[in-house]
Amino acid sequence: MPATPVSPMAVPLPVIPPIPGVRLGATAAGIRYAGRTDLVAMEFAAGTNVAGVFTSNKCPGAPVDWDRTALKGGRARALVVNAGNANVFTGKAGAEAAAATAAAAGKLGGYPARQVFLASTGVIGELLPHEKITTALPGLYESLTPSGWADAARGIMTTDTFAKGATRTAQIGESFVTINGIAKGSGMIAPDMATMLCFVATDAKIPQGVLQRMLRKSIASSFNCITVDSDTSTSDTVLLFATGQARHKKVPAEGGKILNSFALALTELLHDLALQVIRDGEGAQKLIRVDVSGAANAKSAKRVAMAIANSPLVKTAIAGEDANWGRIAMAVGKAGEPADRDKLSIAVGGVWMARAGGVVEGYDEAPVVAHMKGHEVEIAVDLGLGRGRATVWTCDLTHGYIDINGSYRS
Amino acid sequence: MPATPVSPMAVPLPVIPPIPGVRLGATAAGIRYAGRTDLVAMEFAAGTNVAGVFTSNKCPGAPVDWDRTALKGGRARALVVNAGNANVFTGKAGAEAAAATAAAAGKLGGYPARQVFLASTGVIGELLPHEKITTALPGLYESLTPSGWADAARGIMTTDTFAKGATRTAQIGESFVTINGIAKGSGMIAPDMATMLCFVATDAKIPQGVLQRMLRKSIASSFNCITVDSDTSTSDTVLLFATGQARHKKVPAEGGKILNSFALALTELLHDLALQVIRDGEGAQKLIRVDVSGAANAKSAKRVAMAIANSPLVKTAIAGEDANWGRIAMAVGKAGEPADRDKLSIAVGGVWMARAGGVVEGYDEAPVVAHMKGHEVEIAVDLGLGRGRATVWTCDLTHGYIDINGSYRS
Repeated sequence: MPATPVSPMAVPLPVIPPIPGVRLGATAAGIRYAGRTDLVAMEFAAGTNVAGVFTSNKCPGAPVDWDRTALKGGRARALVVNAGNANVFTGKAGAEAAAATAAAAGKLGGYPARQVFLASTGVIGELLPHEKITTALPGLYESLTPSGWADAARGIMTTDTFAKGATRTAQIGESFVTINGIAKGSGMIAPDMATMLCFVATDAKIPQGVLQRMLRKSIASSFNCITVDSDTSTSDTVLLFATGQARHKKVPAEGGKILNSFALALTELLHDLALQVIRDGEGAQKLIRVDVSGAANAKSAKRVAMAIANSPLVKTAIAGEDANWGRIAMAVGKAGEPADRDKLSIAVGGVWMARAGGVVEGYDEAPVVAHMKGHEVEIAVDLGLGRGRATVWTCDLTHGYIDINGSYRS
Repeated sequence: MPATPVSPMAVPLPVIPPIPGVRLGATAAGIRYAGRTDLVAMEFAAGTNVAGVFTSNKCPGAPVDWDRTALKGGRARALVVNAGNANVFTGKAGAEAAAATAAAAGKLGGYPARQVFLASTGVIGELLPHEKITTALPGLYESLTPSGWADAARGIMTTDTFAKGATRTAQIGESFVTINGIAKGSGMIAPDMATMLCFVATDAKIPQGVLQRMLRKSIASSFNCITVDSDTSTSDTVLLFATGQARHKKVPAEGGKILNSFALALTELLHDLALQVIRDGEGAQKLIRVDVSGAANAKSAKRVAMAIANSPLVKTAIAGEDANWGRIAMAVGKAGEPADRDKLSIAVGGVWMARAGGVVEGYDEAPVVAHMKGHEVEIAVDLGLGRGRATVWTCDLTHGYIDINGSYRS
């Protein structure tokens, strides 16, 4: 298979500043890929709190199992991530590979293995050659540096066509803190399933319980509002590390208003990364925003928006640059949520094409046609029932998706 | 766009015998297509009972609205079906087009318009030119014949690549009755959404309430167990007409054992037609059977089976003839149903590839590879939890699907 061209919606990796208390880097462990980095490590200062959110898939990978247990301690000293092998559906050997990796990192750094977090992404059902990781780790540990963010963003890629990262500044009291994040998106390995990984670090000093609540809340409006193909990975992982190295007013145990700026910046950062993932969806040529309003409530709006965003008929129509609002109406109707055909309105690119159960007579098609030719498509649906709103993002369904996912493993 | 080649899984239309009390035929009304029939009518003897099951889509077409009301009377004298325009999302004008069509047929046959059933399939959001139908109806009515089943099967096609029909014989008491059915499957019109229509007739004399219950039950194990792309049409309609012209023991009002043979034959017939629809799924090159066993209960098994059958990653892997059991495990896990990774077993083509959370060491890949190259693929999943079972059918996701659904309307 020829190399996948870079997504037309790619955005450049921003300059990502150091975070006090974080050193990181990448190396080539030769797990699957040749001639590129595939092993990433981050080391965190003592006292780092960690929050995590994981896949809801009932068949999670061994690293997800490991992290769920590790998270109970609330503290992190390191993160080790490999690309090329997901260590999923590998039974007892998979759990042992995870434990061996964490033990090796813990020994190198001099902290408990249970404070080492893990993530793996790549082919599933193959045993992870963890000795390649443990062999490469000592050299990697020696090379860790506060300025390693771009290297780390590249090292966790699988078939991502561009590296994904973001940075924000937030205020706590009178002081400024930094939040950095890197992510990898829907890629296949020779080929395999899409996997989303996201690692965020900040120098803020935030109690673990508060950190976990904020992370969960921010994910609800960022990563949980995107979909490439409705398939939930076995490895999805978002981890947020707070080193506490910044000097700022003490954050009370219950959080509160002092974190307003931080919470906003965190949500913005995760949202930015989530959109980068969609911009690099397998085969994607269009970034699609779906706004639903007028639903019975917010939950209903989200379900309707996801029904549109996951509809193969809607996604193929957009790939064909066809503003086929009939398929959008179909997707609204199949969502199983309260909807009244005769109150439904649909707009594409800001032009209302259908209202009150029928086509808008003589609407101007020219701006819609022009909008569809671009790389960013906006769909708005008003159900005319209540005040529920939701926005989700997806990408189109193209021949590229079939090419990437329909090839033989080899 | 070049003409779509006939599906490699096509089956020939069987010889469909006459049903006493049914006359039918097709004509070219020029609604959208040139050089082919696109208008079908069936006329039923006085005393015909009717049962119907319709789309669960909340934005149904005008003919579905019409039929739901007509069904309350329980009696049918005619069915009028057009291909090329779905009369969906057409507002008040759509309801008027339906009423005008039914009125014209009723006037020709001398029965109430409310005993005329309707179905439309094709592009949505465009007004149905019902005067083309009412103009063509008189000639069509004159040509109706008991032997018109094959013509009718062809006349309701949209982008179906082969005509779909089936016939069965059942016994009621000592007597034999016939059940015929025709269906159309997932087609697009230039292009538009998939629509499933199925019309069944029998000469049996069965009380309407019993007929409705039997139809609903048979659909649960036939049409409700297939999926092409998870998109629920606005027009899905199954109608069952029982003319009561056969001479057999009286069926009691509550039905009962006397209908065992009929119920079995009806289920078989609908199952046969449902599989023909999948064999002609848009772009399909493989018919896929998904068997789930060992689930907590039957409902859970069905949801897991549908999660597999609707997974784009599973469907593209099968298109690529790749027995990628890891994606099947992913789909099991994302279904949200009780599942234990470490009790899960997966087979393709009868060969168990994964058991107890890991790959089966040294399983023989050769028969699996051979199986994947065929046009019929069997997936079996055992969850190892309980006694719940379900089987569903789907097709693969290929470039053909993108071609058909990603083109401009024109």
